Amino acid sequence: MASKKQAITEDEKLETMRHSVAHIMAEAVLSLFPDAKFGIGPAIEDGFYYDFDLPRSLSPDDLPLIEAKMKEIVTANKPFVRQEVSREEAQKIFAHQPYKLELIDKIEGEKVSLYRQGSFVDLCRGPHISSSGEAVAFKLVSTAGAYWRGDEHRPMLQRIYGVAFNTKEALTAHLKRLEEAASRDHRKLGRELDLFSIHEEAGPGLVHWHPKGAVIRSVIEDFWREEHFKRGYDIVYTPHIAKLNLWRTSGHWEFYRDYLYSPMDVEKQEYIVKPMNCLGHILIYKTSLRSYRELPLRYAELGTVYRYERSGVLHGLSRVRGFTQDDAHIFCSFDQLEDEVVGVLELALFMVDTFGFTDYQLLLSTRPEKYAGDIQVWEEATKTLSQALARLGLDYDIDPGEGVFYGPKIDIKFKDALGRGWQGPTIQVDFNLPQRFNVTYIGEDGQEHLVAMVHRTVLGSMERFLASLIEHYGGAFPLWLAPVQAMVIPVADRHLDYARKLESELKDEGVRIKVDARSERVNLKIRQAQLDKIPFMLVVGDREAASATVSVRQRSREQLVSLTVEKFKEAIKKAVADRAKDLKL
Amino acid sequence: MASKKQAITEDEKLETMRHSVAHIMAEAVLSLFPDAKFGIGPAIEDGFYYDFDLPRSLSPDDLPLIEAKMKEIVTANKPFVRQEVSREEAQKIFAHQPYKLELIDKIEGEKVSLYRQGSFVDLCRGPHISSSGEAVAFKLVSTAGAYWRGDEHRPMLQRIYGVAFNTKEALTAHLKRLEEAASRDHRKLGRELDLFSIHEEAGPGLVHWHPKGAVIRSVIEDFWREEHFKRGYDIVYTPHIAKLNLWRTSGHWEFYRDYLYSPMDVEKQEYIVKPMNCLGHILIYKTSLRSYRELPLRYAELGTVYRYERSGVLHGLSRVRGFTQDDAHIFCSFDQLEDEVVGVLELALFMVDTFGFTDYQLLLSTRPEKYAGDIQVWEEATKTLSQALARLGLDYDIDPGEGVFYGPKIDIKFKDALGRGWQGPTIQVDFNLPQRFNVTYIGEDGQEHLVAMVHRTVLGSMERFLASLIEHYGGAFPLWLAPVQAMVIPVADRHLDYARKLESELKDEGVRIKVDARSERVNLKIRQAQLDKIPFMLVVGDREAASATVSVRQRSREQLVSLTVEKFKEAIKKAVADRAKDLKL
Repeated sequence: MASKKQAITEDEKLETMRHSVAHIMAEAVLSLFPDAKFGIGPAIEDGFYYDFDLPRSLSPDDLPLIEAKMKEIVTANKPFVRQEVSREEAQKIFAHQPYKLELIDKIEGEKVSLYRQGSFVDLCRGPHISSSGEAVAFKLVSTAGAYWRGDEHRPMLQRIYGVAFNTKEALTAHLKRLEEAASRDHRKLGRELDLFSIHEEAGPGLVHWHPKGAVIRSVIEDFWREEHFKRGYDIVYTPHIAKLNLWRTSGHWEFYRDYLYSPMDVEKQEYIVKPMNCLGHILIYKTSLRSYRELPLRYAELGTVYRYERSGVLHGLSRVRGFTQDDAHIFCSFDQLEDEVVGVLELALFMVDTFGFTDYQLLLSTRPEKYAGDIQVWEEATKTLSQALARLGLDYDIDPGEGVFYGPKIDIKFKDALGRGWQGPTIQVDFNLPQRFNVTYIGEDGQEHLVAMVHRTVLGSMERFLASLIEHYGGAFPLWLAPVQAMVIPVADRHLDYARKLESELKDEGVRIKVDARSERVNLKIRQAQLDKIPFMLVVGDREAASATVSVRQRSREQLVSLTVEKFKEAIKKAVADRAKDLKL
Repeated sequence: MASKKQAITEDEKLETMRHSVAHIMAEAVLSLFPDAKFGIGPAIEDGFYYDFDLPRSLSPDDLPLIEAKMKEIVTANKPFVRQEVSREEAQKIFAHQPYKLELIDKIEGEKVSLYRQGSFVDLCRGPHISSSGEAVAFKLVSTAGAYWRGDEHRPMLQRIYGVAFNTKEALTAHLKRLEEAASRDHRKLGRELDLFSIHEEAGPGLVHWHPKGAVIRSVIEDFWREEHFKRGYDIVYTPHIAKLNLWRTSGHWEFYRDYLYSPMDVEKQEYIVKPMNCLGHILIYKTSLRSYRELPLRYAELGTVYRYERSGVLHGLSRVRGFTQDDAHIFCSFDQLEDEVVGVLELALFMVDTFGFTDYQLLLSTRPEKYAGDIQVWEEATKTLSQALARLGLDYDIDPGEGVFYGPKIDIKFKDALGRGWQGPTIQVDFNLPQRFNVTYIGEDGQEHLVAMVHRTVLGSMERFLASLIEHYGGAFPLWLAPVQAMVIPVADRHLDYARKLESELKDEGVRIKVDARSERVNLKIRQAQLDKIPFMLVVGDREAASATVSVRQRSREQLVSLTVEKFKEAIKKAVADRAKDLKL
């Protein structure tokens, strides 16, 4: 216990230091912009920020200047001094700082605390480091716009973000991680590798999949469909628009209205673009009277849904307005629920593993304060979920009260190569929809029973999943997913015939292969193929043409390996069929 | 020429007779409903109809009664007598017939002609048969609601449809064709074979694909994608909603507004569900500066689009409000256009043939009166299309002036097993969009050129194409498309283990196979499999289990063929891989 307490104190000390660096930055900004008005400047994860109202927009070039000023303040080693003053005195001190005055108005009690370092004074509760010399490792990283008090009707201030650590080494390591994350940013790689685009003319948050991104998607979809057929799922297709009344009956209009698109009028009826696929699946289920003998029924759909999100929160592929869920709904009896959840968990973990994610966390979310359905049914279903987890020997954490209003759920969060978590598979039991739409079956007893309904995705959405794949692999997709799997590089123009022959032979075997036919040097072509992160480069010259061989250079290796065409063909076909994570020739 | 004139006269005579039978039906209706008010009763293809305003709704049971009355009138052999009266006199005669009075108001000139047979009189221009005894072969077939003068604000009348021919033999043949068409109706078979449904709650014209229909669709889609990859197409995916402004720029808002859904509001911008896929493809094309070296670019998408159609014209899968086009857009130089059109024609005819349609018609549609673009470009492009057709030695008809406003086109209409035509592949050149969106490439000359753009589908839409497949095959799909390819029928419960073993062995090979595990007689199970139009029934009893064989009964054949499991496995796998049209064991 002592060590845990110690750890918290270390965290607190780090937070105090970061908060102090925010004050140092504010002092530096004031020395450069004497008219600056100050918002707030708290510590955050890895660092701090401060919001300023400045006479002009900051550019990236301003950050080194501010940082230089900050270093002067650190070198001057100014002590941080706490002071308590009356409300009136504080109002006098901050007479020219309207945002601070607004904050003073909100402070309860008569005394207001200030912190000074040198001539700079800030309204602040503290605590702080004892003097500015203690701030040894920080860096300003970015600027952004931020509404005062987060209110879009108030002025937009300029926020400067910085990071700060206890040691220079820790800062360097963090900056390296940031750089690595930036170089793997799926928006950047999506552009460089020509995978997708989003267009202001068509609308923010609406993804256009380019040929190379679409190849990855269709390989994933083929694999997904194959696995689902194997595991007894049926594929269905349902329309992207439906009458709004359906969503009134379901309760979505009431609970999620903010995320629904505004209605369209069709012959005096209101329609909306669908925010989820479940209702279409329920309509299909209900086209005939179902017997217990037919259950479980598992309807799966790569269903594209549309949900409104404010344009401010949209982010590349990971936060969008339209996305294709790899959705399925299972209709079963409550007796079958445990087996079904086990089946989904097995499928989900198989998928996560196949795509190369080895680290994940399981969360079981229980009944929230506001819930639909019977408390006993909730408890039984929650028990069923934990039994399913136990049967597979899976460790999991409980997220108390974080279930959806309609039932308990299991979420799987997987970690990428940089250790960042991604929202993955979800398995949700639903007590609400079967009741609202009277989704039933005739049991062995000849009576009508409500079904147990499960919503589940194993990848989440094609969009977010591609984002995770891009960032996990830094764009260097494993062979079976790579948009172009091999690039033939003829040494000279006279080897073009052999290169084309090779291309067509491998294409016939289903290999995604191209020829770099440009009259450029081999090294330049290899460099280009590496930039495009193509798994195999097949260099072919006189020797290869004469002996029906290829000199293979793998994306991740330096040396060339000489192979007969037949051997290479077998190796690549097998690796693709096995969805191999790595391949040694 | 003489014989042609003769033929027209025969047609005219037939039409006259059909019109006269409408009068006979009106007389029969009047004798059963003395208060009947009469609308109009013209001859139509194959027969006639008449619209009535009646005191009660007609039921199917009324038709034989009316028909019996009609036969009495025919037997009475009443002469048809023409009479000319003044407008005032006519108004007196039809004083209690408000619809006729309205028609009289519309007649120009002072004289109004009437036709009488017996005591029945009708306002009519004629001509007619000389007496009712000449109507020897007719039948009433259906009733429907029809607004007076086709105006939904006027009263809804009841329309009775009948058919009439010169001979009893011709009538019988026609009724048999009707019966065959009715038994193949894709709406009926879609329900019976559990392929799809359309729901009033979700909205008319919006198709929900059930598991069995979705299997067919996904087999078609896999085949489609495979063929497109092979032929150098790229797959793309684009969103189902986009800002309305895009459709203003394209001209669709101006030209096709009636078919577009009403706009949705998103952060004060108008969005619509997309009526076509082209604009998304153009946005992808325009994400980088294209060189002539990259062309042709062929973007293909199974793109679901939404177009408004009045609910009155919707029809099963063949006329809907949402449909998935097997769409592609080709961006090329004008020099490449002929090769590209040849490529599309080859692909289209290959697809049509693979699906078992052997009879088709090619139509080249030329410049309409209202057109966009330069007349010389039109002429060159039209010539290019006809050259492409000539290169493949294809016969075609010219449909003068039937091109789209943006360019000439080639349509392929294929015929089903009953000889009815279906709208199939279409290839359209577009001069409009490249100009409006400035879709260009840099030529060998270093200059910017507008691309030649081709819109094309080879199946049309997944929905309409499934309708044609269902009706062409009467639901008995060829093996490779059949939702369930084989049903294992154990003779007794003790053969269930062997049946399950067989099922799992064939499933592993990708065969869509099920076991009819019910404790029912073999004949009843065979009958059910036949109703479900399953290509193979595998009957397994003691002998089969002991010898690792199956007794195979084919859907279309009576006899059982005994085969080893291995032989059957090879045969079915080969037939599926070959997309065989028929399969003899």
